[in-house]
Amino acid sequence: MRDPIPGHGAAGEGLTRADRARRVAQVLRGQVLRGAFPGGVLPDERALIAEFGTTRNTVREALGLLRDEGLVERRRGVGTVVVGRTYRHPLGELSGLAEVLQRHGTVVNEVREAQAVRPPGAVARRLGLAEGEPAVYLERLRRVDGTPLSLDCTYLIPEVGEPLLARGRGALEGQDVFDLIERGVGLPLGRAEVSVQAVVADPATCAVLAMPEGGAVLAVERLTRLADGRPADLEFIQLRGDRLTLHATLDRARGTGTGPARPA
Amino acid sequence: MRDPIPGHGAAGEGLTRADRARRVAQVLRGQVLRGAFPGGVLPDERALIAEFGTTRNTVREALGLLRDEGLVERRRGVGTVVVGRTYRHPLGELSGLAEVLQRHGTVVNEVREAQAVRPPGAVARRLGLAEGEPAVYLERLRRVDGTPLSLDCTYLIPEVGEPLLARGRGALEGQDVFDLIERGVGLPLGRAEVSVQAVVADPATCAVLAMPEGGAVLAVERLTRLADGRPADLEFIQLRGDRLTLHATLDRARGTGTGPARPA
Repeated sequence: MRDPIPGHGAAGEGLTRADRARRVAQVLRGQVLRGAFPGGVLPDERALIAEFGTTRNTVREALGLLRDEGLVERRRGVGTVVVGRTYRHPLGELSGLAEVLQRHGTVVNEVREAQAVRPPGAVARRLGLAEGEPAVYLERLRRVDGTPLSLDCTYLIPEVGEPLLARGRGALEGQDVFDLIERGVGLPLGRAEVSVQAVVADPATCAVLAMPEGGAVLAVERLTRLADGRPADLEFIQLRGDRLTLHATLDRARGTGTGPARPA
Repeated sequence: MRDPIPGHGAAGEGLTRADRARRVAQVLRGQVLRGAFPGGVLPDERALIAEFGTTRNTVREALGLLRDEGLVERRRGVGTVVVGRTYRHPLGELSGLAEVLQRHGTVVNEVREAQAVRPPGAVARRLGLAEGEPAVYLERLRRVDGTPLSLDCTYLIPEVGEPLLARGRGALEGQDVFDLIERGVGLPLGRAEVSVQAVVADPATCAVLAMPEGGAVLAVERLTRLADGRPADLEFIQLRGDRLTLHATLDRARGTGTGPARPA
């Protein structure tokens, strides 16, 4: 029986150290994100070498990858420690980010822009707006306990967006847009179509989100519909890759979950 | 009414060109990923300037961002064209990637490793394995119509993994592991816990996936259980950010989807 990350000898055939470091890093990454290390301190090098059955250099290279991702840092006299906290967003619920994050800390929505705009044609078409019809554009930076987590750019149909604008920035800062639409405007929401992609954030976004340059974000595009099926808003959300993970529980047998049902 | 991406004047207060380019890029990115451009050719600069109500420089910078992400390229005499195809993976189904991608093209699973290993402690614990118990490690590179899309590292419990090894590489290359487990080994699968994160791929992974260095991947961790609730395998999947998006339809009212149900 071989070690999964062989360091040398016959078991290492064809594997570069970078390959071995990648295998170590992906296991450690999962542990960091799940908060599996007591006190946020990773085991020391010797323990990691034993755990993964690999060499010191491979362990160091793996820790270097996680450092580059902004997940851990080396602290003198302590060892390798987890940097900051990672938040979990349940993908299965159509909920506003703030609704979810309020369970974890104090959410502040910094409103960077809120006004009526002439939407780009591609956005107008997806929102079902007629040529020349305005939209409301909302740009918010979401912070949890002071840490910027996401940058949300939202185009809303006028029927939904105008009443939100009328409530002023204060309402937008303190409350989630989904809540405002349903309770404030009185329009119940229905379904949403969501797509998720990994993107290297551009420098402007990195600056706004206080991320290291060249870091990755989850780029979420979400078209949310009113209960009657009409589009309500189209959002472009960038979630910091180093601070937020999406979660879901999927069911094989019943094909439940978020997709179309599988035949039984 | 302002343009959503104002190029100059009062409407542009506080907005840098990078901010404006980001807003243009995020709309175009969604269109690229949805295959919204006929023939894969983007509108020319003049049309984009009109559509977004912005300047030539902003449009150029936005296209530059998409080029950096590997989504588009400039072709002489044609304009800006979409590079390659983007595949959609329904996140709501607990299905193997190959099962989904087979709808789109010829899937080849290149088996890079398949053997019994001593799993790292963190993996053993999540799989419910006793100290010293082996696991089966499987590493596969998945290609669709020749394009590498994902690198999958899977640790399986012996009861599931050993019969797979016994079937040989041929079976693993041609068939999805979920199919092999259910039909070949005869063990029905139950639920899976999935987490998704955006990560900048390390150089070794970029090389294997034929991605530009510094590109982003969707890092998926999936713990799949047998129908009786025991863990069957733990997978670390890296999906090319420039070629694959995850999709889901979420329901506000019923809290269906992949997460825990919301109170009615």
